[in-house]
Amino acid sequence: MEIILAKRAGFCFGVKRATQMAFEAAEKEGKTYSLGPIIHSPQVVHRLEEMGVKVLKGLGEITDGTIIVRSHGVTSEELEEAVQKELEVVDATCPFVKKAQENVQNLSEAGYEVVVVGDADHPEVQGIVSYAKGKVYVVGSEEEAARLPKMKKIGIVAQTTQSFDNLKHVVLECLRKGAEIRIFNTICDATAVRQQEATALARTVDCMIVIGGYNSANTKRLAEVCAELQPRTHQIETAQEINPAWFGGVAKVGVTAGASTPKWLIDEVIERIREIDSAKTS
Amino acid sequence: MEIILAKRAGFCFGVKRATQMAFEAAEKEGKTYSLGPIIHSPQVVHRLEEMGVKVLKGLGEITDGTIIVRSHGVTSEELEEAVQKELEVVDATCPFVKKAQENVQNLSEAGYEVVVVGDADHPEVQGIVSYAKGKVYVVGSEEEAARLPKMKKIGIVAQTTQSFDNLKHVVLECLRKGAEIRIFNTICDATAVRQQEATALARTVDCMIVIGGYNSANTKRLAEVCAELQPRTHQIETAQEINPAWFGGVAKVGVTAGASTPKWLIDEVIERIREIDSAKTS
Repeated sequence: MEIILAKRAGFCFGVKRATQMAFEAAEKEGKTYSLGPIIHSPQVVHRLEEMGVKVLKGLGEITDGTIIVRSHGVTSEELEEAVQKELEVVDATCPFVKKAQENVQNLSEAGYEVVVVGDADHPEVQGIVSYAKGKVYVVGSEEEAARLPKMKKIGIVAQTTQSFDNLKHVVLECLRKGAEIRIFNTICDATAVRQQEATALARTVDCMIVIGGYNSANTKRLAEVCAELQPRTHQIETAQEINPAWFGGVAKVGVTAGASTPKWLIDEVIERIREIDSAKTS
Repeated sequence: MEIILAKRAGFCFGVKRATQMAFEAAEKEGKTYSLGPIIHSPQVVHRLEEMGVKVLKGLGEITDGTIIVRSHGVTSEELEEAVQKELEVVDATCPFVKKAQENVQNLSEAGYEVVVVGDADHPEVQGIVSYAKGKVYVVGSEEEAARLPKMKKIGIVAQTTQSFDNLKHVVLECLRKGAEIRIFNTICDATAVRQQEATALARTVDCMIVIGGYNSANTKRLAEVCAELQPRTHQIETAQEINPAWFGGVAKVGVTAGASTPKWLIDEVIERIREIDSAKTS
């Protein structure tokens, strides 16, 4: 079998940076924590746990030590609490997410009502929203945007992993809602680029493997868009989940991975597929 | 024949205000001028000329007197020249146009490159554009917007009589051109309201009369949209242009007028149609 790995599979800039910062912090003396999983990869989180980094649900659980802020960011209240508790803060928030948080704060302070284009349940969005000091709305679709009230000054910011189409729809709806609109296009192209490359690959192979956390929204979406083009698409977290039966009659396998999937997990998957292939042909 | 006049035919807020200011200025002592036609109605301009208001092509022609700034506004350089010459300035610029000029100036001073959605040849647009102190582009269509360069901060303002659809298309194109976009929706609904009422009327009548200056863009467009629905649509400037043959077999006549058409011209047209109808039936 030919195994083709998508050019940009796995870690995006922000996740790579956050992971590096977390491993560096873990190597230092003292108690180290992360507020929520540092990235949406249970395997990376597990490795950090083995190095002593405990995942907290809230800062109420600790009184001292080092707290790593995950790549998706936290709320301004949580960051404030960490500072007040005099914890050592390692801020691994993705710089693109940080920018969106800052934009929301600035818009809010300048008197704009803020619309965040994104998924209200996602921790990134909850963090971004917390920086609004005035009115703020989270809008996930054109339909939700249509229900927004009339506003005087509207500020628009997007969850970094949103699709450009969704931002477009919300902007058009908002054009009817207010006389002044200020948009910060905070969408990061890492998600779009991974999807474009993965779908291009899915068209040319007989089987598609998508690696990434089941809690990772971008990996889930990556698997969805591939499955639309290649029914033999499988999402896995680790090489152990691979079923040799998937490769019956397969000449070409495509492999891609979500933005929070580390290289070592990708390498293990490719290695495992090679083993299965050897067993088939021998 | 039944004659139905569109509810909102003729003078919009800005034109009514400008005309009042011009007639008041004309009644005062001293030399009075307007820079370009005060509104796009040759008949109103002619009345003002009879009262002594001379239409200038440029301020170079005069050294003193009162200058009336037309409803469409003038360039910042022209206004500056008038102030330097110590002319008395009667600023009849439509407040909505004034707002667009101010928005362009503020955007420009705040470091935005400015996109004006409008017709580059229109005096209103030429006035608005002159308030940009940095880069400024006039964009009349989606195709022109697609040719805009990449920019960092884009400010968007519209000619007050533009269609919402055109603004929408330009905004969407600009979303791909820059990371920050600030939009002032300076479209005045007077144009859209007149078009909506006129087209609703055109559907129900056998003949449609549209009154307004041949140099008036909004009147021309009003006649175009009516003609699409009612082939027996005629644009006229005055009652004298009416041809009785237009009304052969007509039971219902619709009448509307552009935003720069005074009430007395509309009244004369209705009177003339009544006369023709009386002659037909007697």
